[in-house]
Amino acid sequence: MKIIIPQGFKAGAVASGIKKREKLDLALIFSQVPSKAAAMFTTNNFPAAPVKVCREHLNKGRSQAVIVNSGNANSFTGQAGIKDARATAALLAANLGIKKEGVLVASTGIIGKRLPMDKIKAGVPLLVKGLSAAGIHKAARAIMTTDTFPKLAGAEFTCGGKKITVTGMTKGAGMIAPNMATMLCFIMTDARIESGALKAGLRAAVNASFNSITIDGCMSTNDMVLAMANGYAENPAIKAGSASFKKFQHALSSVCLLLAKMMVIDGEGATKFIEIKVKGARNDAQAKKAALAVANSNLVKTAIYGENPNWGRIVCAIGASGVEVKEETLKVKFSPLAKKDIFIEADLNIGKGEAVTYTSDLTPEYIKINAEYN
Amino acid sequence: MKIIIPQGFKAGAVASGIKKREKLDLALIFSQVPSKAAAMFTTNNFPAAPVKVCREHLNKGRSQAVIVNSGNANSFTGQAGIKDARATAALLAANLGIKKEGVLVASTGIIGKRLPMDKIKAGVPLLVKGLSAAGIHKAARAIMTTDTFPKLAGAEFTCGGKKITVTGMTKGAGMIAPNMATMLCFIMTDARIESGALKAGLRAAVNASFNSITIDGCMSTNDMVLAMANGYAENPAIKAGSASFKKFQHALSSVCLLLAKMMVIDGEGATKFIEIKVKGARNDAQAKKAALAVANSNLVKTAIYGENPNWGRIVCAIGASGVEVKEETLKVKFSPLAKKDIFIEADLNIGKGEAVTYTSDLTPEYIKINAEYN
Repeated sequence: MKIIIPQGFKAGAVASGIKKREKLDLALIFSQVPSKAAAMFTTNNFPAAPVKVCREHLNKGRSQAVIVNSGNANSFTGQAGIKDARATAALLAANLGIKKEGVLVASTGIIGKRLPMDKIKAGVPLLVKGLSAAGIHKAARAIMTTDTFPKLAGAEFTCGGKKITVTGMTKGAGMIAPNMATMLCFIMTDARIESGALKAGLRAAVNASFNSITIDGCMSTNDMVLAMANGYAENPAIKAGSASFKKFQHALSSVCLLLAKMMVIDGEGATKFIEIKVKGARNDAQAKKAALAVANSNLVKTAIYGENPNWGRIVCAIGASGVEVKEETLKVKFSPLAKKDIFIEADLNIGKGEAVTYTSDLTPEYIKINAEYN
Repeated sequence: MKIIIPQGFKAGAVASGIKKREKLDLALIFSQVPSKAAAMFTTNNFPAAPVKVCREHLNKGRSQAVIVNSGNANSFTGQAGIKDARATAALLAANLGIKKEGVLVASTGIIGKRLPMDKIKAGVPLLVKGLSAAGIHKAARAIMTTDTFPKLAGAEFTCGGKKITVTGMTKGAGMIAPNMATMLCFIMTDARIESGALKAGLRAAVNASFNSITIDGCMSTNDMVLAMANGYAENPAIKAGSASFKKFQHALSSVCLLLAKMMVIDGEGATKFIEIKVKGARNDAQAKKAALAVANSNLVKTAIYGENPNWGRIVCAIGASGVEVKEETLKVKFSPLAKKDIFIEADLNIGKGEAVTYTSDLTPEYIKINAEYN
């Protein structure tokens, strides 16, 4: 499927010099009208400056633009970092002729260094000048850090005779390598939708996608998922719980799941894509806890890297997760390990709870990437 | 310090054929009189058969012998596995002329396979015949799996004019590689001590040692720490809270900490020994939670392997641990990473809670060991 940007959105990117060797490092997403926005942020107790400024701006009304820099996380930069994030928003707002509260900011890269504001100041006018519908592909490249390919996904549906597009971009590539990778995701849609419905839809989509994957069990200070809905499709407004909401949820969830799977495939050093299904748990939350425990087990991940059919490590991880289990009823099966896509299923056989998580294997290359990066 | 076995204890080991190539795989510790015993077990929800049988026997009175096999965990073996563990205890009891409830059993090795009872039956009489004070060194070798050296530690103190010896042995070597390594520890002392004091002493010692180390964050189905006190020293009985209890606690804690550090040094693939101190937390429990989060972070461990002074990964792990923190007050420092012993200190500067944990780095060799082992 060809990825197109939803109506009323433009995007673009420039190489501002934050990253070395003239790599794209400043991306912009712009909606021609103020949009409804919903967001989910890292639960790390040290949220980075852009996370704090996004929360502030989202509370003040509609959003119209997102500016993202890669190469510097603006994390652990104190009050100065918050000032820099606010100044970036104000600068972009002035260039776009919009209110500064309409600008959201995101950063990914090294922790503990001030943003090079001179480079951002020089880059912003060029960024605004270069905005276009096709610019989304450039923007998806600009937000990459250790990612090896840009990650875009789209879905379409109709609502009241109008075609609605949902398009997202994300970057990995360790679930977090706080120094160099962070999970960022930006979703655009031209749907007209009520705020509550957008928020509920995003929460459900993220729960089954980005909150169901893990590369290394670490959590960044900068993670965020933003969704903007600008209403350009002029469909009858989508209300939570309606038939059209179901269609919207399906489109949004499939975009998020596609992007999440791309992040796992591009996980640092990954050679295998692993899907872990736990069923028969007391409830869905327990199933997810067990599935994440398997996904985060270094011993399971190294066994799969080695194509070593070691079911003892899977049951051991489930037992250590703390969820309700019975040795007599547990059944574990997995697909042939020589393939690239691995499917593990554990049936606890005590209830109806189910969950699926996704992860990659743990390889010498992961260690090389993370040992050497400075 | 030369390691000696406490008075009234003997030990030994044989190669029974559970492991290949005539390696020692069956160890025995024997006290000439029934001993007071205390134990701590894995909290994995799938405890192995020997863990269940130990719990049963400990509830029925004093203990006089511990038989340990390596090469087979007798885990996920159902009712048949429990029968095998009980049969092992009964067989040894008959050979020693003691009650079967006086025998404790421990296993480490592959999950999901029945114990080769014919080999154990053939080995037990030889094991009993070979018992000696010097046999403790052989026993420490017999409980090894991926360990590269046997782990013994001892301490002495006086109580009421009597010399008391505390001697322990342990094996690693992943904190858990459930397939091939499990944490087992056996402590002997000739102290005369009240049961409650022995239990309290063991709990405190384990909390500050084995429960403060992590190699890979995984938890085995077979982990156990046993302490036996046979009273041979004829000291006035040690009561909890007394001055002599303090001496006992000091000796027991130092033996456990030495053994725990040896396990970290011998961690699978380890090239660095890392001590992580968190202070200034709201309380000790929060300090330990934060310190373990740093110790379990793959990103911190790979950075240290790469001698990459990446403090962002340390603060990120602390922030993700969920403990109370303030960005403004956190201070992190660490020793030069080019050395083998690394010391990390994080001062949260919000309270008086402190904890120390120990771990190793994460290396390509860890992955090799765990990818290839079958």
